[in-house]
Amino acid sequence: MSPTFSFRVLHTDGAARRGEMQTAHGAVQTPAFMPVGTRGAVKGMTPRDLREVGAEIILGNTYHLWLRPGDGLIAGLGGLHRFTGWDGPILTDSGGFQAFSLGAKRVMTEEGIRFRSHLDGSEHLLTPEGATDIQARLGPDIAMVLDECLAQPAPLATVRESTERSARWARRCRDRFLALREFGAGELRLDSETAESRAPSPESLVPSPESRPHVTNPGQAQFGIIQGGTVPELRTLSVERTLAIGFEAYAIGGLSVGEPADIMYSVVGHTAPQLPADRPRYLMGVGTPLDIVEAVSRGVDLFDCVMPTRNARNGQLFTSVGRLTIKNAKYADDGGPLDPACPCYTCRTHSRAYLRHLFVSGEVGAAVLNTIHNLRFYLDTMARVRQAIVFGTLETLRQSLQAMFSRPLSDS
Amino acid sequence: MSPTFSFRVLHTDGAARRGEMQTAHGAVQTPAFMPVGTRGAVKGMTPRDLREVGAEIILGNTYHLWLRPGDGLIAGLGGLHRFTGWDGPILTDSGGFQAFSLGAKRVMTEEGIRFRSHLDGSEHLLTPEGATDIQARLGPDIAMVLDECLAQPAPLATVRESTERSARWARRCRDRFLALREFGAGELRLDSETAESRAPSPESLVPSPESRPHVTNPGQAQFGIIQGGTVPELRTLSVERTLAIGFEAYAIGGLSVGEPADIMYSVVGHTAPQLPADRPRYLMGVGTPLDIVEAVSRGVDLFDCVMPTRNARNGQLFTSVGRLTIKNAKYADDGGPLDPACPCYTCRTHSRAYLRHLFVSGEVGAAVLNTIHNLRFYLDTMARVRQAIVFGTLETLRQSLQAMFSRPLSDS
Repeated sequence: MSPTFSFRVLHTDGAARRGEMQTAHGAVQTPAFMPVGTRGAVKGMTPRDLREVGAEIILGNTYHLWLRPGDGLIAGLGGLHRFTGWDGPILTDSGGFQAFSLGAKRVMTEEGIRFRSHLDGSEHLLTPEGATDIQARLGPDIAMVLDECLAQPAPLATVRESTERSARWARRCRDRFLALREFGAGELRLDSETAESRAPSPESLVPSPESRPHVTNPGQAQFGIIQGGTVPELRTLSVERTLAIGFEAYAIGGLSVGEPADIMYSVVGHTAPQLPADRPRYLMGVGTPLDIVEAVSRGVDLFDCVMPTRNARNGQLFTSVGRLTIKNAKYADDGGPLDPACPCYTCRTHSRAYLRHLFVSGEVGAAVLNTIHNLRFYLDTMARVRQAIVFGTLETLRQSLQAMFSRPLSDS
Repeated sequence: MSPTFSFRVLHTDGAARRGEMQTAHGAVQTPAFMPVGTRGAVKGMTPRDLREVGAEIILGNTYHLWLRPGDGLIAGLGGLHRFTGWDGPILTDSGGFQAFSLGAKRVMTEEGIRFRSHLDGSEHLLTPEGATDIQARLGPDIAMVLDECLAQPAPLATVRESTERSARWARRCRDRFLALREFGAGELRLDSETAESRAPSPESLVPSPESRPHVTNPGQAQFGIIQGGTVPELRTLSVERTLAIGFEAYAIGGLSVGEPADIMYSVVGHTAPQLPADRPRYLMGVGTPLDIVEAVSRGVDLFDCVMPTRNARNGQLFTSVGRLTIKNAKYADDGGPLDPACPCYTCRTHSRAYLRHLFVSGEVGAAVLNTIHNLRFYLDTMARVRQAIVFGTLETLRQSLQAMFSRPLSDS
C-alpha cells in the first residue's frame, strides 16, 4: 500500500467488517457511505453542512470535472480539496461510467473511449492513461481505474471481451499511476514554478493534451475495479486479473445498472469474499439503505449513490418509518417533524407542512433542507451498521431495514 | 404604542438615527435591513444561516402566503414564526404592491383589489379588512396597511385620488386592527378549541371567506404607509391623514417603482422629517447600499429589498470594492476570496474560481453561497451605518458607498 493509505478491520460480524481506512486527508470509519459531489459540490450542501450530517469522505466525478472547469485549472488552484473547500478524504471515479452513459455519443476502442461532450458536443478521447493523469491533477485521495461498463443483460461473449479489456485497461492505469508516483513529486515542483504560463485559458473546457502530468496529491491511492457482469466465472476471472496487477484496494463495478436486487446481492456475495481481507471493498453506485446493509453483510466496506441527494431534490425522503413523499397533500397541515427519530437540522427546525410548502413552491431551500435530512439519514444508518457489527446484531438491523425499505411506499 | 412594540433613538448624526426597536419577538438595532422571504423563506437560507449573517428581522409576503399555503393553515400551525422556524421579528407587507404588480389581472375599487391569482387564475378580493385579518392570522410582529401603489409618472389627479383612497383604506385597516386587538385573544382561545374542524382542506389555496378572524400574535404592531407619489404636497397630505389615524409607526411607500434616484431621495427628504421622531420610519422596497445610506441620512430606520438575494442568485455580488459579476471569465482561475474584506462563510471557505464554477454549472450551491455573501455584505453595511451614526461619520461612509456603488460595473 501507499505510505498514506491503509486499512484495518476492527470487528467482524459474519462476513461484515467494521474497519478504519486511512487516507492522505484523514480517516474514514467503515462501512462508509460517500455522498456524491458530481461537479465538485454535493448539490445544495456546503462543506460544513457535510461535516454536520456526518460525512467523512465525498465523491467527485472525473468526467464532469475534466470537461468543466478542467483538471488543469483545478490543479493550478491546488487540487480538488482546496478548490471545493472540503478538506476531508475525496474519491473520484474514473469517468468510465459517465462515458458509458452517453450512449450513442461514444465509441469504445482498445485505445479508450471516444465521445462527444454533453456540454458543447466537442470530441474527446478518454484513455486509461488520461484518466489516471486527470485524477493525478485533480488530487483526490483515492483514484479509480478506467473501466468499461456494460448494460445488463449482455451476451456472454460481449461480457467476456469487456471484462478482458477492463483488465488490460487496469494494467495501463496502474503502470501510469506508478510512473506518476515515482516522478510526480519532481513534476509537481516544476509545475508550480511555471504554473502561470501553463494555466489554461479560462474559457477552455478541455485541458491541452500536451500538458504534462501533474501530481497534486502525492498520497493518492488507486483502486482497481472488478467487472464481469452477472457471470460468476467472469467475476472470478476479473478478480484474478485485477489482483495480479495489485492496487491499494478494489471495487466491485458494473452493478446497479438495471439488474434485479437479488442478482446484485448474489454477484456481491460471490465476488467480495475473493477480494483481499486486509483491503477495503467498494461497491460502486449502490444503493438503497437495504442494498447497503445486504452488501455489508457480504463483506463490502464503501458505498456511493446519488439516491439520497437526488431523491431529496425530488421530495422523496428517507425516514425511520420508511419513505415519504413530501408533496403528498396529507402533509399540508402536518406540524410534526419530517422524522421524529432524526436529529438533523431540518427535523429539529421545520415541520412537514413547511417542507411541503417549500417543495410545492419550488423554493431552493427545499433542496437544501431535504438533502440535509436524507444524507443524515444515510450517514446515521451507516453509524448504526457499524455499531451493529461491533455488537454482532447486523442481521437484526438488516431485517428492520428490509421491513422499512422493501415494502411499497406507504403514502403513494 | 402596543405594550410589546416600542422604539427609542440612542444616537443621532444630523437627521440620521441610531435606534432600537422592540417587538413581540425581540429587539432590532436600527437602521436595519430586512431580508425578504417572500414565501416564508429567504431563498436559499435556513434560519440559522440568517442568524449567522446578522439578520435581526425578516420580511414575509402577505399576498403570496395568503394564496399558498394559506393564512388559515399557517395560523393553525401556530403562525409564521413557528411555521418558518424563524423565531425573531417578522414584518409582513399587506399584499398591495403584489396586487399592483399583477397589472391587467387586477381591478382597483373603493372596496379593495380584485385580482386573479398568479398560481391558478382563481379570482380574489383583497380588502383593507381582509389584509388586516390575514396578517392577524399569519402573526408577524409588524403588519402593514393595505395601500394602493401607482406606477410613476402618473397624472396629478390620479395620484391625488389614489392618495386619498390609501388614506381611507388605512382608516379601515386600523379600525379592523383595533377591533381584533380588543377581541382577538378571546377569538384565539375559541379558535384553538375548534382548530381541527376549521382547518382548510390541504389542497385549498384560498381560506374560506367565512372564517372568523384569528389573532396569532397578540403583540402585533401595525404600520401606516405614506403615499403621494412624487408630489410633495400630496406626500404632506398623506402624512397628515395617516398620522391622524395613528399607527405604531409609519412607512414611506410608492417609491423605488421606476423613478430616478434623486427624485426618490428628494421625496424621502421631504417626507421623513414630517413623521414622528419617536417612531421608526420604514422606506419600503429600497434599495442599493447607496440608496440606503442616503435614506438613513434623511432619517429613515428600516429597509427591505430583494436586491441582495435576487442578485446573488443571478451571480451579481456586492463587495467592499464594488459590484462583481461572478460568471465573468476572468474569475475562472482566481483562487482568491470573493471579497477579501468579508468574514462570511462563503468568503472564508471558497475562491472566486469555485463560485464561478458552481454558477456556470447551475449548481444549487451557487445560490446558497452567493446569498450568504450578499446578505452578509448588506447586513455588515448596516452595522457600519449604525457605527458611523454613533461616531458622527455617516457622511464619510456615504461618500465611500457612493464611490463604490454609483460608478458603472468595474467588470462588465
